[in-house]
Amino acid sequence: TQQLLFGLSVRNKSFRVTNADRSVKKGIIADSLETLVNKASFSLNVTPGSLVLDEDGTDVETEEFFETLQNNSVLMLLDMGEKWSPHPNCLSRGHVC
Amino acid sequence: TQQLLFGLSVRNKSFRVTNADRSVKKGIIADSLETLVNKASFSLNVTPGSLVLDEDGTDVETEEFFETLQNNSVLMLLDMGEKWSPHPNCLSRGHVC
Repeated sequence: TQQLLFGLSVRNKSFRVTNADRSVKKGIIADSLETLVNKASFSLNVTPGSLVLDEDGTDVETEEFFETLQNNSVLMLLDMGEKWSPHPNCLSRGHVC
Repeated sequence: TQQLLFGLSVRNKSFRVTNADRSVKKGIIADSLETLVNKASFSLNVTPGSLVLDEDGTDVETEEFFETLQNNSVLMLLDMGEKWSPHPNCLSRGHVC
């Protein structure tokens, strides 16, 4: 149920993007993977290495996978050389956190 | 409730495909087992031996079994000669992980 409102693209989605140590999280609106990485890179002051899902570290590499992401998905923008790690409160996969 | 949006096929599903040691996980969109294996093989740089369910190592060998996979299923693409092993955090069967 996406709508054209106030000049926003119908494809715009809202994301929450954190850095590798989860010390900062930014709300970012984007209609493409390229736009999301550019905006998050500027906002978090990170040289983009890769963009991954915060929940399990899945790489978001393609626009087609980006299209399937839910509104309000939490992502992590990794700097060059940084690696995803699970949230410290989640000691096992599938833990609800 | 699949919809034809933005030119995506109605049969497309979103998967998360990891390599044998779970060091890399990629978001992959595919509408068939053949497409999924080809895309994951390229993205993970793996010569495809077999594609299995990450949770219990079940072989995904047929298109009809592929059809039954849920959106966002986690799979593992094994290189020739590699074997599935349970996640190290899951020490016992039935553990939620």
